[in-house]
Amino acid sequence: MSKKLTKRSEDYSKWYNELVVKAGLAENSGIRGMMVIKPYGYAIWEKMQAQLDKMFKETGHQNAYFPLLIPKSYFSKEAKHVDGFAKEAAVVTHYRLRTTPDGKGIEVDPSAKLEEELIIRPTSETIIWDTYKRWIQSYRDLPILVNQWANVMRWEMRTRLFLRTAEFLWQEGHTAHATREEAVKEAQQMINVYGDFAENFMAMPVIKGVKSETERFAGAEDTYTIEALMQDGKALQSGTSHFLGQNFAKAFDVKFLSKEGTLEYVWATSWGVSTRLMGALIMTHSDDNGLVLPPKLAPIQVVIIPIYRKDKQRQEISAKVDEIVNKLKARGISVKYDDSDNYKPGWKFNEYELKGVPVRLAIGPRDLENGTVEVARRDTLSKEIVAIENVDEHIDNLLSDIQENLYKKAADYRDAHITKADSFEEFKDILENKGGFIAAHWDGTPETEEKIKELTKATIRCIPLDNPAEEGVDMISGKPSKQRVLFAKAY
Amino acid sequence: MSKKLTKRSEDYSKWYNELVVKAGLAENSGIRGMMVIKPYGYAIWEKMQAQLDKMFKETGHQNAYFPLLIPKSYFSKEAKHVDGFAKEAAVVTHYRLRTTPDGKGIEVDPSAKLEEELIIRPTSETIIWDTYKRWIQSYRDLPILVNQWANVMRWEMRTRLFLRTAEFLWQEGHTAHATREEAVKEAQQMINVYGDFAENFMAMPVIKGVKSETERFAGAEDTYTIEALMQDGKALQSGTSHFLGQNFAKAFDVKFLSKEGTLEYVWATSWGVSTRLMGALIMTHSDDNGLVLPPKLAPIQVVIIPIYRKDKQRQEISAKVDEIVNKLKARGISVKYDDSDNYKPGWKFNEYELKGVPVRLAIGPRDLENGTVEVARRDTLSKEIVAIENVDEHIDNLLSDIQENLYKKAADYRDAHITKADSFEEFKDILENKGGFIAAHWDGTPETEEKIKELTKATIRCIPLDNPAEEGVDMISGKPSKQRVLFAKAY
Repeated sequence: MSKKLTKRSEDYSKWYNELVVKAGLAENSGIRGMMVIKPYGYAIWEKMQAQLDKMFKETGHQNAYFPLLIPKSYFSKEAKHVDGFAKEAAVVTHYRLRTTPDGKGIEVDPSAKLEEELIIRPTSETIIWDTYKRWIQSYRDLPILVNQWANVMRWEMRTRLFLRTAEFLWQEGHTAHATREEAVKEAQQMINVYGDFAENFMAMPVIKGVKSETERFAGAEDTYTIEALMQDGKALQSGTSHFLGQNFAKAFDVKFLSKEGTLEYVWATSWGVSTRLMGALIMTHSDDNGLVLPPKLAPIQVVIIPIYRKDKQRQEISAKVDEIVNKLKARGISVKYDDSDNYKPGWKFNEYELKGVPVRLAIGPRDLENGTVEVARRDTLSKEIVAIENVDEHIDNLLSDIQENLYKKAADYRDAHITKADSFEEFKDILENKGGFIAAHWDGTPETEEKIKELTKATIRCIPLDNPAEEGVDMISGKPSKQRVLFAKAY
Repeated sequence: MSKKLTKRSEDYSKWYNELVVKAGLAENSGIRGMMVIKPYGYAIWEKMQAQLDKMFKETGHQNAYFPLLIPKSYFSKEAKHVDGFAKEAAVVTHYRLRTTPDGKGIEVDPSAKLEEELIIRPTSETIIWDTYKRWIQSYRDLPILVNQWANVMRWEMRTRLFLRTAEFLWQEGHTAHATREEAVKEAQQMINVYGDFAENFMAMPVIKGVKSETERFAGAEDTYTIEALMQDGKALQSGTSHFLGQNFAKAFDVKFLSKEGTLEYVWATSWGVSTRLMGALIMTHSDDNGLVLPPKLAPIQVVIIPIYRKDKQRQEISAKVDEIVNKLKARGISVKYDDSDNYKPGWKFNEYELKGVPVRLAIGPRDLENGTVEVARRDTLSKEIVAIENVDEHIDNLLSDIQENLYKKAADYRDAHITKADSFEEFKDILENKGGFIAAHWDGTPETEEKIKELTKATIRCIPLDNPAEEGVDMISGKPSKQRVLFAKAY
């Protein structure tokens, strides 16, 4: 495999596409907009899933599974939702094929037309609230705290591996509550869970905030979001949590008998993250040599490569490496010893660098004599010679260091790319020449938001949750504003 | 929740359906043939998944993910496969909906018709071999040992929760090899993994065997199967592993450069188990009181129920229970303390019995005084009084006992239901009055197999792997036979 990647500075987008393919993460299938997630990419996704699933369960959620196909009419029940989701969707119209008259191919059997078309779920609020209607009668049935791991489909016109694909994998939590307060608390709790996951596992700093009305989920009363910043200065929405009010309960007529004996509509939330997080992870840390992975999500945390000429040397090295491997495994560190002789050490060095393995050990005959091993870290590309005796403790600490360092580096970059703008000229200048988030005053209307988007392609990413009050004027309308909000160009 | 289930002896099928719904495992959705897997059912499936996934990884497999939608033409490439799978399938024909002229609903947008229809995967051989063509050039790229956890769809006319649904969840392994021998070995290895899982985790005895040509997977050269026996005397195919020969490599033109420098077609296997295993698990062990779960797959292994009148009693009990819970958790036993006061103890006893929790502890003021606790086991419905002091060790042993006992009970039943038949009269008599597997001679032709099926609905479940040679004559044709094969009515 040739390693040469396009440099980020040359063509960021090309760099990303090449990296995803060359590092063995994903590739385009023969089918428009749909990707194949390759084993190495899927292994990272599995680590994400496992951690998120643990966090969901620790906060009291259970998993369940709902149908892939949703009748068309379900979408029409919630007015905003239908516009947001039902239009660009994959539609199942028939349930049978038949052999063509020439006997060589197959064709749709016109007699097997469905009475009502079925939509491949773009998101599952409708089918789930249709189900919750059966599950909820009394306050005793509440709360329902359910999550689903599933594939979903949105017929996107322009697709990019992980970032925007017609089919993607995600989780969608759907909860039902007796009170508004409880539902709001749940929606906020889950955006905090996402923030915690992004920062402490992906090593990706995020800004937690709330969306403007325009950017809200179709059918939500409030959408909370975590927004990350990529190395090209563009923001990436990485997870959202929605307070849905009683909208879906009303659309699907889901009421419960309260403790007080009254019939009330149920309050709802939904929240999700997807394989888009893979794109965020890749773009936050990687460099011109390839992928850089935070140790907590790396399928292989340490790779060991033997350097030898003669088979006897290899045997001696392998005996020593076995000891190291056992010590590392005892500490819960995942390690791969690559002593295959299909490829030379130099090729392997490049390969594992490309794949973002956080720590690489190299060990040759000289090292054996000296009782040492060469330790290279992927994030800084620095090397050092370490005594074999305590190498396990050294690596344990090193992995923590790398995790921290990656977060710090990304946080420094992000912090240096939140810039205040007080005029539209300044705003455009920052957007064009520096990128990142721009903190600017906004009059709170969809009109100016739309105008800014039209003129610059920048959107309001969020109103940060801990936003300080500050009097000011909107850049465009000149109307008064009570706080700055964060704008950026976004994925 | 009313607990009364229909008795198995009254109506086995009705008993099953009621049990699945009342125990909170699954229910029918509003959409034909598609089920909702409820949290408790999904928790069992997750335990199955986790164990199987571990076993797949221990045998060198990695997970990946391939597209949900497969172009129609892919199916036509393998002649037998297209007949077996492409006909009763969900067909996506359009990718957009639009608002109806009256503005009230949505309808398919005729201008958004796909050039080629897409099929929701009924199984993924075609899309995966289309992908492997890109992955495989040389012997260095082999073997490929990949598994996918996914949803699939087959448009079944008669559906039953878990046993036969239009959409179901499964895993499908797809491997590629340089030699026939290696591929055959892989297919055999995986049927052994399935057998190991069924017997040691599901506590479900299975017969490993090979399918007759008629019952083979569409596109396979050999299909290995594990066959279990349900309490109504019907067999249930629980997992299959296929040696696919070079059929898919030829259909998708996948060749590799061998070590010797020749271009060869790749050898293949595929293997899968699905949520159908949930049906097998339920029907193997459960009784007229509800679900019975083997401890190794029970989401809750132990439930503790306090018996009290006054709140002070409850507090004292809870303090003691906390100790027990901690000791059980320290042994890795999953335990639930249900001190909710929404329901009375009697209601809870019934509920957890219905849900198949293997061990129930009940503890009241008298127990506290005596330092004892009542321990009830779900499989035998027997109770005993046990000293609290060593209750954790006692329960640990008890869980192993229950696991073993369930297996033994099922194995005894199964062994008592393998009956030899030497004439067709005898065959029909056993089938009608006793059920189970019938070991009978067969001349090896699809014709007699078909005839027996027509006349009795019984099919050849498998030719056991360890089948002894035995000279005999076919019951129908009178032609010579070299071995008995296993017939049964099947799910």
